[in-house]
Amino acid sequence: MKITALILAGGKGERFWPRSRKNCPKQFLSLTGDGKTMIQKTVERILPLVKPEDIFISTNQNYKKLVSEQLPDVPECNVLCEPVGRNTAPGIGLGAVYMRKKYEDAVMLVLPSDHLIKDEDTFRSVLSEAVETAEEESCLVTMGIKPTAPETGYGYIRFLGEGARKNAYKVERFVEKPDLARAKEYLADGKYLWNSGMFVWKVSTILGCIEKYLPAIYSGLAKIEASIGSDGEESVLNAEFDTMPSESIDYGVLEKEDGIRVLPGDFGWDDVGSWLALGRMRSLDGAGNLISGNVVSTGVENCIIEGGDKLIAAVGLKDTVIVDTQDAILICNKESTADIKKIVENLRNAKRDEYL
Amino acid sequence: MKITALILAGGKGERFWPRSRKNCPKQFLSLTGDGKTMIQKTVERILPLVKPEDIFISTNQNYKKLVSEQLPDVPECNVLCEPVGRNTAPGIGLGAVYMRKKYEDAVMLVLPSDHLIKDEDTFRSVLSEAVETAEEESCLVTMGIKPTAPETGYGYIRFLGEGARKNAYKVERFVEKPDLARAKEYLADGKYLWNSGMFVWKVSTILGCIEKYLPAIYSGLAKIEASIGSDGEESVLNAEFDTMPSESIDYGVLEKEDGIRVLPGDFGWDDVGSWLALGRMRSLDGAGNLISGNVVSTGVENCIIEGGDKLIAAVGLKDTVIVDTQDAILICNKESTADIKKIVENLRNAKRDEYL
Repeated sequence: MKITALILAGGKGERFWPRSRKNCPKQFLSLTGDGKTMIQKTVERILPLVKPEDIFISTNQNYKKLVSEQLPDVPECNVLCEPVGRNTAPGIGLGAVYMRKKYEDAVMLVLPSDHLIKDEDTFRSVLSEAVETAEEESCLVTMGIKPTAPETGYGYIRFLGEGARKNAYKVERFVEKPDLARAKEYLADGKYLWNSGMFVWKVSTILGCIEKYLPAIYSGLAKIEASIGSDGEESVLNAEFDTMPSESIDYGVLEKEDGIRVLPGDFGWDDVGSWLALGRMRSLDGAGNLISGNVVSTGVENCIIEGGDKLIAAVGLKDTVIVDTQDAILICNKESTADIKKIVENLRNAKRDEYL
Repeated sequence: MKITALILAGGKGERFWPRSRKNCPKQFLSLTGDGKTMIQKTVERILPLVKPEDIFISTNQNYKKLVSEQLPDVPECNVLCEPVGRNTAPGIGLGAVYMRKKYEDAVMLVLPSDHLIKDEDTFRSVLSEAVETAEEESCLVTMGIKPTAPETGYGYIRFLGEGARKNAYKVERFVEKPDLARAKEYLADGKYLWNSGMFVWKVSTILGCIEKYLPAIYSGLAKIEASIGSDGEESVLNAEFDTMPSESIDYGVLEKEDGIRVLPGDFGWDDVGSWLALGRMRSLDGAGNLISGNVVSTGVENCIIEGGDKLIAAVGLKDTVIVDTQDAILICNKESTADIKKIVENLRNAKRDEYL
């Protein structure tokens, strides 16, 4: 069966402000020092499994040009722009109906555009087993990550020991982001995985689930599908998204469906959820620092410093993230990276759009 | 007797980098938020006691223009430029010979150009007593500051309880910057004062001491004095400073001379020795911060942030000093402000003169 992919690239990436901006969020930035953007790396990673013409991008009008520039091999007609954000269920459903229109059915990878994976060979081999499972079992398959720490920032998936199909375990339940005590229990338990947000299923399977659990969304998607290729395509898309309910694929489908399988992955996954990820991705100096650009420092430990045009002089700092850009500089305690969103929120409230 | 003043304005102010630069050091900056520079405040403070035409400035050629711009009422011929820095003894001696040439003798205040004093009336009343003491006793008089903390960054002066002339105590000895344990002893002792670097003496007294203890310096100064007003003035000055020994007035004279008196001062003195002084000078917000300029912040405590053109976003920071300028930004732990000099040193070694 044809293998297709839907890359989710509509995110705002606010946790990577000030480099991530409204007009160029995280997935379109190069953060790894190799000159490739996150979305370019995401596509390259799956090219051994999926042809460029079978890769679809879920994004919005603001980023259409960036996608085309950064992914010239992906056909423009595969760049699907949601008129308004309606969370992941309508977005994934939109990709699925375009695929159904083109291929009737296919196995569909659903992948975020802003994750990093160190061991790509292992990743693709897990992905291949997921494809096989999704095709032969006609079930939803999710990729779980073997936890290495009691993370409170991820949702978890508990799987059952019995009933596995090779490495594809039966999902017992999805659990929301835990507090630290629970996260420690989950880590010790051994049957919990991090929910990576990467899914594999047949187009027919996921659309069947959306029809079953989210009929209002399905009805809109069906109208859009009927309009594909017609003169009314754009106006139907706009009209249906305008009234479509907002729902996530996790709450709307995964937590309701039975028989979901999860493949435990151990391939150096990183969701690049904050500036701290840079320190995990790249090699540090002897004092635990990652320093690049126009920086002079003395007595600095465990810091991440991205210099820009202006000279940064860092003195006696510990556990601090500094990111310089053309018009703004972030100076953030490593423990407070989650609060970067507050800064963006404050700027938005103050209508300082030039910094967004 | 005529009262004159010599304002020492040749310092490099490296501890106030990046605002203090080679071409405009600390004494020429406004740091107090009232728009007046440190040297302007220094002069204003003594104007009730000394006429502008009796104020001399000890500086160097680099700063001559700044002095004239900032102190238009001080005659240009009173701006004395040392051809090379030879520490404080030659600089003070130079001022003294110009005063002797003009007035034969006078009482001479010697004042740094970069200190702040909150209670100026009290300061002037102590200064007046110092003038009276220096004139009538023909002794060296130094201004001591009643210590309020076990500071390790200042030299100390111990005075004797007996033999005081009003508030002018006899100096028992000068002591170098102590370690913390000793500083605590000094504070508890009650007879130790901080050495403020402010002195009062007659021109004849200090020149007599320089002749006695630093004859090589005196001999050069005498040749310079003889040339004042002649065509050869500048070349004699250059030649004599070229070969003059480098010596501080403290080591070279004060620690050798007997009969020195010290006046304990309690007038809100601050030597503005580091960026931390800003936090002492101005009022702080409820979280102990002093924040000005283009700054957004969240979860910030006990920080000093001077914003510039670029937006500074400070997140979760504690005890941090941030100073933005056109081409460089300092980010420094409050405990490490002494290491700012290392940064300046590194920049100098790397020949990055644009930042000096």
